[in-house]
Amino acid sequence: MANQVMEQLETPALILDEARMDRNIARMRSQVQRLGVVFRPHVKTNKCIDVARRLMETPQGPITVSTLREAEYFAAHGVTDILYAVCIAPNKMDHVMALQDQGVRLSLILDSMETARLLADRARATQRQFDLLIEIDSDGHRSGVKPDAPELIEIGRFLQDAGLPVKGVLTHAGSSYDAFTVDAIRAMAEQERAAVVHAAERLRAAGIACPVVSVGSTPTALFAEHLDGVTEVRAGVFVFFDLVMAGLNVCQTDDIAVSVLATVIGHQREKGWTILDAGWMAMSRDRGTAKQPVDQGYGLVCDLDGQPLDDLILVGANQEHGIMAHRSGKVDGALHLPVGTQVRILPNHACSTAAQYGHYSVLGKDHEITAVWQRFSGW
Amino acid sequence: MANQVMEQLETPALILDEARMDRNIARMRSQVQRLGVVFRPHVKTNKCIDVARRLMETPQGPITVSTLREAEYFAAHGVTDILYAVCIAPNKMDHVMALQDQGVRLSLILDSMETARLLADRARATQRQFDLLIEIDSDGHRSGVKPDAPELIEIGRFLQDAGLPVKGVLTHAGSSYDAFTVDAIRAMAEQERAAVVHAAERLRAAGIACPVVSVGSTPTALFAEHLDGVTEVRAGVFVFFDLVMAGLNVCQTDDIAVSVLATVIGHQREKGWTILDAGWMAMSRDRGTAKQPVDQGYGLVCDLDGQPLDDLILVGANQEHGIMAHRSGKVDGALHLPVGTQVRILPNHACSTAAQYGHYSVLGKDHEITAVWQRFSGW
Repeated sequence: MANQVMEQLETPALILDEARMDRNIARMRSQVQRLGVVFRPHVKTNKCIDVARRLMETPQGPITVSTLREAEYFAAHGVTDILYAVCIAPNKMDHVMALQDQGVRLSLILDSMETARLLADRARATQRQFDLLIEIDSDGHRSGVKPDAPELIEIGRFLQDAGLPVKGVLTHAGSSYDAFTVDAIRAMAEQERAAVVHAAERLRAAGIACPVVSVGSTPTALFAEHLDGVTEVRAGVFVFFDLVMAGLNVCQTDDIAVSVLATVIGHQREKGWTILDAGWMAMSRDRGTAKQPVDQGYGLVCDLDGQPLDDLILVGANQEHGIMAHRSGKVDGALHLPVGTQVRILPNHACSTAAQYGHYSVLGKDHEITAVWQRFSGW
Repeated sequence: MANQVMEQLETPALILDEARMDRNIARMRSQVQRLGVVFRPHVKTNKCIDVARRLMETPQGPITVSTLREAEYFAAHGVTDILYAVCIAPNKMDHVMALQDQGVRLSLILDSMETARLLADRARATQRQFDLLIEIDSDGHRSGVKPDAPELIEIGRFLQDAGLPVKGVLTHAGSSYDAFTVDAIRAMAEQERAAVVHAAERLRAAGIACPVVSVGSTPTALFAEHLDGVTEVRAGVFVFFDLVMAGLNVCQTDDIAVSVLATVIGHQREKGWTILDAGWMAMSRDRGTAKQPVDQGYGLVCDLDGQPLDDLILVGANQEHGIMAHRSGKVDGALHLPVGTQVRILPNHACSTAAQYGHYSVLGKDHEITAVWQRFSGW
């Protein structure tokens, strides 16, 4: 595939703009260095060793994963320090132990006494140790123990008594995706930091060691003013960014490093529609900008140089058909792109769009495809 | 994997209830036989030879596909009569010709003079024939030439003059997904039939042969009263059905043959939330029931026998987290399922949920997993 140009690709195809990606990584690296914490990148967005190698502080990690399949894949590529950042389920313990047997230092998280008891039973039955972090709920958006909850100390003490020392506490301020100004994101970053540091201090005050204090989301990581008391930061989507992040002013549209290359296959001119060969299978069903001030439909349409094209968006999507139209709905004077014209569509959500593909076509200068990087899916 | 039971699977996992699938296939087969037309099943929903073999009239097909990757995969499994039901783009012609060279009789569709000219140029340059159908727009929902449009005859005549005879006309009444009563679906089926038959008659009256008249969508195929003038019917999602189809009364929830096996990993009791290890990566981002009278969130939660559980749905989804709650929002008295409990979630849309997985775990009697059937993705 090397030395191909983008125009020769069969569509739809997932394009990764290498220069934009490298710029995004440099921005996060500089911020993490300023904050003075360990960077544990989340690889759920990229699921690709070629991308992860540019993110990691060492070839062995650390990294954050969202599935044990990710842990398995990155372990096969030499990564040994892996945090699985979803509360563990009993049916995954055989998989966890197989990874431990391969030499992976896999950290698990939990947020309940129920899970603490299951893990203690499993540790006793198998004569194993598990590295455990307690998830803290810093914003009410999903999982975690409230930082002030009595259960936090109960879990910590139970684990310690069971011979499973608490490695730390972790939180994810998912609500930062609803913070539409830089000030709101900064406030959310401080809320995230303060909640998890408070939880760590409560554990320590109760005589429970808590060396790791982990926070992270792309918006809060990029806009945190300080992370006093925090030891590590996690973030994933920043590597590619997307329209949701641009809608939060966390990035600009010309920072978005992934796009879907698509081709015009027809028109319904009386409606101002152009039909593309990229539907929801190519874009994903993610409509993350629907709740933002600017709704980008199923994606923002750009020319082959990655510049937005006459305010065209995908207003609808079937499985393999995308309906492109002017954002305003105007029909007269809509840009006519002949059948065969290629466009690039910026996605609402990089994680979900990239997940629809088995590889990235890596874009260099002058529309050249310089590499093909494989990615994987599944659990 | 054979002789495993469902309870032993690592979650999330895609479960295919074989008995329900076979019943759905028998229902469609009986309807198609009554209608007296050829059945050309759409394999975009299943993307799996083990499923397709139960659908096809012969091991060689015919089938309908939505991508050339599907054509390639099914051709490798011996299928030779394939209709690619998305208007062809120029950059796919090398792929088309490679399939022809493997002995596939691949039918292509088009809906514009622009594409007709591109195909005629390519046929001339390569000394090839292409089997071409003209797409007809029977309901305004997507692609196709209006049955009454002068362009229909223009395209037909141009192709004939270029030595590329028209094989037929085809339409897809996608608007049947917005028809919420059996009467409305019947009316849509008649509209679909009448439009494409009218288009075929216009072509024939102009001296252009048009042997194939092809219609199809799951709702219209199942509820059409007659298909006079039609030669073949296409449908795909009926093989599994889903909550969107149940919401249209095209099936019942206990006809839905695919579900996602998930595990309870935590709770936020004060909100009535149970957290599952199946988020949007496991369910897809498809919210197809959002516009229906009953919104099923990201899916309807069932017990391991596939029976709906206390009116619980997935009210929210992150990448690997699903938030299960009572449909009414009630917090007090919500069913408490301990950590580790497995549930099965019926999906909004079988095509998009199944696309998130690399295989089906085939469910037989007594929770037994009798087989693992591979499926593929990509283009």
